[in-house]
Amino acid sequence: MAIVVQKYGGTSVASTERILRAARRVAWKRSQGYDVVVVVSAMGDTTDSLIALAEAINGDAHPSPREMDMLMATGEQVSAALMAMALQRLGVPAVSLTGFQAGFFTDDTHRAARILDVKPDRVRKELEAGRVVVVTGFQGIDAAGDLTTLGRGGSDLTAIALAAALDAEACQIYTDVDGIYTADPRIVPNARRLEEISYEELLEMSSSGAQVMQLRSVEFARQYGVEFEVLSSLSPLPDEGGTEEKKTKVVARVNPQFQRVVTGVAVNSKVARITLLEVPDRPGIAAKLFSAFARNKIVIDDIVQSGGPGATQADISLTVAKDDLDVSLDICREVMQEWPGTQLVYDVDVAKVSIVGSGVASNYGVAATMFTALAERGINIEMITGSEISISCLVRASRAAEAVQAIHEKFGLGDGDQPVAIGTRGGEDAKAGQK
Amino acid sequence: MAIVVQKYGGTSVASTERILRAARRVAWKRSQGYDVVVVVSAMGDTTDSLIALAEAINGDAHPSPREMDMLMATGEQVSAALMAMALQRLGVPAVSLTGFQAGFFTDDTHRAARILDVKPDRVRKELEAGRVVVVTGFQGIDAAGDLTTLGRGGSDLTAIALAAALDAEACQIYTDVDGIYTADPRIVPNARRLEEISYEELLEMSSSGAQVMQLRSVEFARQYGVEFEVLSSLSPLPDEGGTEEKKTKVVARVNPQFQRVVTGVAVNSKVARITLLEVPDRPGIAAKLFSAFARNKIVIDDIVQSGGPGATQADISLTVAKDDLDVSLDICREVMQEWPGTQLVYDVDVAKVSIVGSGVASNYGVAATMFTALAERGINIEMITGSEISISCLVRASRAAEAVQAIHEKFGLGDGDQPVAIGTRGGEDAKAGQK
Repeated sequence: MAIVVQKYGGTSVASTERILRAARRVAWKRSQGYDVVVVVSAMGDTTDSLIALAEAINGDAHPSPREMDMLMATGEQVSAALMAMALQRLGVPAVSLTGFQAGFFTDDTHRAARILDVKPDRVRKELEAGRVVVVTGFQGIDAAGDLTTLGRGGSDLTAIALAAALDAEACQIYTDVDGIYTADPRIVPNARRLEEISYEELLEMSSSGAQVMQLRSVEFARQYGVEFEVLSSLSPLPDEGGTEEKKTKVVARVNPQFQRVVTGVAVNSKVARITLLEVPDRPGIAAKLFSAFARNKIVIDDIVQSGGPGATQADISLTVAKDDLDVSLDICREVMQEWPGTQLVYDVDVAKVSIVGSGVASNYGVAATMFTALAERGINIEMITGSEISISCLVRASRAAEAVQAIHEKFGLGDGDQPVAIGTRGGEDAKAGQK
Repeated sequence: MAIVVQKYGGTSVASTERILRAARRVAWKRSQGYDVVVVVSAMGDTTDSLIALAEAINGDAHPSPREMDMLMATGEQVSAALMAMALQRLGVPAVSLTGFQAGFFTDDTHRAARILDVKPDRVRKELEAGRVVVVTGFQGIDAAGDLTTLGRGGSDLTAIALAAALDAEACQIYTDVDGIYTADPRIVPNARRLEEISYEELLEMSSSGAQVMQLRSVEFARQYGVEFEVLSSLSPLPDEGGTEEKKTKVVARVNPQFQRVVTGVAVNSKVARITLLEVPDRPGIAAKLFSAFARNKIVIDDIVQSGGPGATQADISLTVAKDDLDVSLDICREVMQEWPGTQLVYDVDVAKVSIVGSGVASNYGVAATMFTALAERGINIEMITGSEISISCLVRASRAAEAVQAIHEKFGLGDGDQPVAIGTRGGEDAKAGQK
């Protein structure tokens, strides 16, 4: 029988009622003729409770990562056992397995372990015996036999890795939203759910602020070629409404019928901008700065450097996560000691607004359309960066929501909107109606 | 280095404060030059919380024992991780191990698994590396790789089994009382803590109502010849008061200096008496009754049969745990169908008061002294039973406390009491002052 892996996140198993509800969804899938493997996260607030216990013990000291893994791994074990019981109560044969029982072998980087191998022999055996297999997300075992956890978003990793190892027909990630939208529906009421999105686009959307999934899980899926679906566990059950489940499929190549030049608009308000003024304009300056950040394990979100040919000084602007601002400023001050006259300024009242789409770089006029949308509202662009599939503008934080709305509308991305036709470079991909 | 196994029960690790306090006690023991292995139970109310979750999922249905074990095993894992962190915070190298990591192999009787083998290779390795090893009590793994739990009192079993496997110098069971007393101090204020007690006496005290430890753990200790100490984790730490720790040692043979004819007085109020009146007095009647109880897995606490030579009818009285009363009455009614004319009565307002001591059966006058103590207070004896090391009287529940006080005083068991001299059968053991 075809195998389906379903993953239920913390909000989907936040209470015993929700677990029972999720179990009905699993039972329904099984009734459709699938072998179902369920991956569960810890119940909503369990993780916080466990962390609070650890903090009460450790005070200001940092607990050993190994012992934190031992502690945190219990969260998923509780929900896995309860999910198996819930299924049994519905008359569905079920068995729960911990990470090591399910064959998750990792390295020994506690709290952020890397999956080295998945040997799901026991999972297969239980499926063959007609059982739904409930696997604890987020965890595995290292070569020494110690429990490890995979870090944030780890349960998604578990589901995707299991789908790959079992050659599953589908991998369904149940969360509290019913898919990926063209923009955050709280900001743009007529934002449209995407039928499909590519790994690259989702990665870009996520790193631009749309926090549906951890980057790591999406990268892992891309690496192993596992296509997956994002669905809501809060939507009506198939046996309640009979309507088809809403979802977004995350795929390697989006089906041409769903392709658009611009896929979505994202906003990231958790960035801060740091500017170094009057930096000596000579080779190796950017490298020096990047190296210092890398040594301190701080990720630079974006970087731009001004100053044209012949200039002896340049301004360097970079954005970092707001949480990293203090450390980043220290790094800059350290590096700047070698550059007398260089000044340091920063700004936390900024937000990064991005358009994402596989057609962004290859189409004429996309950037122009974006900038026009902002200009029409009188929103100043303070910094521009771009990638193969995105263009980002730094704007005042207070204007960020308006900027997203303006851009979303300008590209006609919403429900009921007329998509705006934009010219495409090259021949084969050219569409009718381009200017 | 000599190994000491310390076990901390649910009340001893009920909060993070208590865990930190227990950790100081472990650290102190280690500072005295011992390799310390710590066995922990689940934190005080964790077990109840987990059971409540399971009940919310299962409603009236019985959850699968396998899944209950998966669920319950998380309780000890949490306290083990926290204990390891607490030790590390005190500067003591420590590592926590689950039942399977510590090498506990059991059968597959979920919720009441039997230990088949203990292979503490990892424990030894960690001790050799200079670490305190914290082991989750109560659990192991079966041949299929499934988690199992050892049932009530299971953490004591874990400690005793580890002490045996590691050939430990001492096994210390920390609980909320500082030892075994001659009687329950809440009933008898001047009850005296025993320095030593034999396995057999403790078993008899426990089955007579003194619930310090599960019978199973004591039997296990006797079987493997592991002597252990019962101590209080709530008493002052050695580094606080400097006084020696109070305790009771549970041993194979009590040191002659601590031997008494009567060791203690126990009371069990959780019994009910069932009487079958006018039962045909012929061979096989008692066997029939016992077999029916055994088939239903109900333990008969005590049984007496009246009726002398020549009688054609007898009365049979038996005591069972109050919780088993309803089932027991059903069993009796079933069996009685073959005995027309037999009547069934029962009484729940009774309590069993027992004296326990290795000298009880071999000494003249012990029973007489006990009965005299009760007679002096006008307490009626409703049933008498005895074993090699105990004599029990059934009395009105309302008079039970007074009965214990009277007997305790009569035998001079309390602090400041003058022990009563009682005659001994035989020669070598005879003591001066016997009558």
